[in-house]
Amino acid sequence: MMTQETARATLENLYRIFTIPEAPESTLGEIDQAISKDVAGFLQTHIVALERSLEEIEADFSLSSIPEQPTFVSEYTEFVKEKLVSQSVHTAAPGFIGHMTSALPYFMLPLSRIMTALNQNLVKVETSKAFTPLERQTLAMLHHLVYQGEESFYPQWIHNSQHALGAFCSGGTIANATALWVARNTLCAPSGSFGGIAKEGLVRSLRHLDCDGLAVLVSSRGHYSLGKAVDLLGLGRDNLIKVETDSDNRIDMAQLKDSCRRLQDENIRPLALVGIAGTTETGTVDPLDEMADLALELGCPFHVDAAWGGPTLFSERYRPLLDGISRADSVTMDAHKQLYVPMGAGMVLFKDPTALSAIEHHANYILRHGSKDLGSHTLEGSRPGMAMLVHAGLSIIGRKGYELLIDLGIERANSFAQLIRQHPDFELTNTPQLNILTYRFCPKAVQATLAQATNEQAAEINLLIDQVNQLLQKDQREAGKTFVSRTRLKVSGYAQELNVLRAVLANPLTTDEILSTVLEEQCTIILQQDIQSLLEQVNTLCGQIIVSPKVACA
Amino acid sequence: MMTQETARATLENLYRIFTIPEAPESTLGEIDQAISKDVAGFLQTHIVALERSLEEIEADFSLSSIPEQPTFVSEYTEFVKEKLVSQSVHTAAPGFIGHMTSALPYFMLPLSRIMTALNQNLVKVETSKAFTPLERQTLAMLHHLVYQGEESFYPQWIHNSQHALGAFCSGGTIANATALWVARNTLCAPSGSFGGIAKEGLVRSLRHLDCDGLAVLVSSRGHYSLGKAVDLLGLGRDNLIKVETDSDNRIDMAQLKDSCRRLQDENIRPLALVGIAGTTETGTVDPLDEMADLALELGCPFHVDAAWGGPTLFSERYRPLLDGISRADSVTMDAHKQLYVPMGAGMVLFKDPTALSAIEHHANYILRHGSKDLGSHTLEGSRPGMAMLVHAGLSIIGRKGYELLIDLGIERANSFAQLIRQHPDFELTNTPQLNILTYRFCPKAVQATLAQATNEQAAEINLLIDQVNQLLQKDQREAGKTFVSRTRLKVSGYAQELNVLRAVLANPLTTDEILSTVLEEQCTIILQQDIQSLLEQVNTLCGQIIVSPKVACA
Repeated sequence: MMTQETARATLENLYRIFTIPEAPESTLGEIDQAISKDVAGFLQTHIVALERSLEEIEADFSLSSIPEQPTFVSEYTEFVKEKLVSQSVHTAAPGFIGHMTSALPYFMLPLSRIMTALNQNLVKVETSKAFTPLERQTLAMLHHLVYQGEESFYPQWIHNSQHALGAFCSGGTIANATALWVARNTLCAPSGSFGGIAKEGLVRSLRHLDCDGLAVLVSSRGHYSLGKAVDLLGLGRDNLIKVETDSDNRIDMAQLKDSCRRLQDENIRPLALVGIAGTTETGTVDPLDEMADLALELGCPFHVDAAWGGPTLFSERYRPLLDGISRADSVTMDAHKQLYVPMGAGMVLFKDPTALSAIEHHANYILRHGSKDLGSHTLEGSRPGMAMLVHAGLSIIGRKGYELLIDLGIERANSFAQLIRQHPDFELTNTPQLNILTYRFCPKAVQATLAQATNEQAAEINLLIDQVNQLLQKDQREAGKTFVSRTRLKVSGYAQELNVLRAVLANPLTTDEILSTVLEEQCTIILQQDIQSLLEQVNTLCGQIIVSPKVACA
Repeated sequence: MMTQETARATLENLYRIFTIPEAPESTLGEIDQAISKDVAGFLQTHIVALERSLEEIEADFSLSSIPEQPTFVSEYTEFVKEKLVSQSVHTAAPGFIGHMTSALPYFMLPLSRIMTALNQNLVKVETSKAFTPLERQTLAMLHHLVYQGEESFYPQWIHNSQHALGAFCSGGTIANATALWVARNTLCAPSGSFGGIAKEGLVRSLRHLDCDGLAVLVSSRGHYSLGKAVDLLGLGRDNLIKVETDSDNRIDMAQLKDSCRRLQDENIRPLALVGIAGTTETGTVDPLDEMADLALELGCPFHVDAAWGGPTLFSERYRPLLDGISRADSVTMDAHKQLYVPMGAGMVLFKDPTALSAIEHHANYILRHGSKDLGSHTLEGSRPGMAMLVHAGLSIIGRKGYELLIDLGIERANSFAQLIRQHPDFELTNTPQLNILTYRFCPKAVQATLAQATNEQAAEINLLIDQVNQLLQKDQREAGKTFVSRTRLKVSGYAQELNVLRAVLANPLTTDEILSTVLEEQCTIILQQDIQSLLEQVNTLCGQIIVSPKVACA
């Protein structure tokens, strides 16, 4: 217990933190101004390039007790600067091409501040007012981008108190889960004496449908969120059918049809075919039109996960790659990816403006029937006004601006692919269709040997090359100058899965020179002792000196 | 198609928006500075008090096409200022006591900007580095608050690469869904030849468990997110058993036990008992200790939804109200409520540090086995670094600071309750246990009549009083000076549900004077013609002049 005097002093301090702004000359005030003036400079100056080990960093975040006494804001800010910011990841750096984060347009920062200062809650109109129509308009704009509906279609739906054209959410995972939730509840809708799955649950639904299960079909490149969704929805991961891809990482239509037939034999209903517009690992687009045909034939919903590739629709040149997307019943799109909005903005759009009724819910104090509260059609409850930033991007950058960004990224990916093809020590492991590609360190001579090797020999060599690429990626990340990610993929021409390096070309500040630097840095890392000794083993295995490790990247 | 020249110009503009900061003297720069200097002043100046109708506002957000051409940032900012900010809700206003949003500590704004500028993605270490240990520490701190684990417990778990003490998420809805998902998957874990629900789905799980359903039990005050969760998880809303409350809005233990017995007769397994620490509508805490006893007896998990009331644990004085919470298997807590963090920060904590294994998932390019990536244990995928703001609150405000905030809110609720009790025209409809209460306009004379009326008479009178309160709440909201919310509740002493006004006392800037103003404003609104004519009908019904409408609030 504190004395009355301490209590009064603490209370005064409390009021101060709610009423007195940070002074401009305070530590936090200074950082704030530095970010306002030049965020790129701030990140460049404050994020330390050279990586400390995670274990070392953890030592700064090891206390499990909540501090008993308040701390000065300035003291905490020093901590944030020294221990957190310095050891965070420079996701906006043009040489950070391993993941789906990019530099952000400058206007996003001050607009984010307005959003945070207003602290609206989009679950209901009473705590968001104009933000509700704004979010509804944002959903309509992206609905229009995907479905190309007639202008006359929207006025009756955009602000309809009974419906919503989509659900705004924290990201693609919730978007995909929402889409499959809607598909499941629509298939198992109330009918006759059956009250519907929302009311009666899955077991009775299957009995009502007279089937033994519901399956979701997607290519083996499908995002891992789909696995979570079928688990969550009670379908079981066994019923997420991962169909093999063709040599271009697109779903193999013949195998998809086979899988559908097999399911039919097992009395399992296809709940949804899921097409991918921009796979996470290779940026590939499935043959959406053919999938839509099949879905139609099967009478089952067609969902497109366009979390990454959706904004390709802005590009007149590349838009045809997504032909068929407008036939999808639902489409996932992430604004924090190629709409260049800060983290935490996903969406799922529905062709049928009444589709979300399948998961509609109400409560006594909000989301009342007939209200325009967006929360009655979302998986999440309280949500921030992120739609504002999407709306800002669409308005300020415009369709043509996004088109340029998309075209730029795809062209950059093509030139990076060309660079890799021409380099004697790298192997392109997928031809980019959009702006994501994979490759690996594998000298041309080794490639030649692999092409003629038996499966066993190839497996042995690839095991070593896998280790090389794993070390290479790790060392490059730790050096902190440039960054690519890695994944494990089935690559055309090889019997087994391979470790490959993955590059995402979505940062408009990434130049061809930077891409050359990425490869050059990798060539330097290859010269390190641990990797060289692996490469010597490759030489031995190949039975002849086909690789001259020390000069591998001459 | 654009000409080459236009394309070049647009491209240059594009680079500008990624590389040239907003000038301080630009419209957006000025707003940014105004917010930095004095956010309260900014909100006060820019949010228009008087409400335009939603339909009018919608006219500003009616286009469904994405603008073809880019717009100047300054032009868009004018739009934001005039059409969006002005028509948003002043959630931080001390007279806005209807929902769970409050003023924020000043340091949250510049820290939010750091978070947005860094744009980390917490799904994996590669895009968040130090933010991952920071989030893990934040979870440990709140775990410690709830479970009071030994200091020696944490070092082995806090940064454990196989496990996580909880899941950070966008809000309480996802937190509750995650808790029930974990409970479901733990009950239906792999065993012998049964592969577990995550793999085989719900139907086979029930067959394996040899039961006909899984049920979640909660009081009728349970949050609507639980309904979504049982729907999502395939259990069906029929299996969300809403148990009646006692006269204090706490779950009726006798009825809960009855419900459990009835489920047993129907061969339905209780999946979880859900206790509430701070119901959304009345702020009441269930008898958590007794519920924990029952859960133990039934051998079923005990989840506590402490989205609102969790931070009461900071208060030495009121902490005992939550006795038993440390026996819960999982606890939901929202940081954007009583931890005073901006919208979008929820958490679910698990007593057993290995519990989240039940929903663990992996992918080839991230979340690899043995990595410390937080994404392998969360429902969501990509997520922003909101944990930083929770960490900041805990560090800067400290346990004692939060204690004062909690105590302040509860005391304010008590004094508001006192004010309502003493007022001749209002009726307190629940005694606040924490800092939420409900009341209604209902003159003492009407209350007296109701106390002696038959059920039919009371129903007729209450129907009119319901309409009065509905209008009252709407008119007060539209006037924009002060705000309470409304809900519909079973109130002790009345046979039917009633419309009640709801006040949430969590803004430290709300004074007793402001609370008086709220009631005074309501008394003025009551004098409006439409309400007066309803009150005259009440008079007629009561058979005598018991209310003198015009002087109702003398």
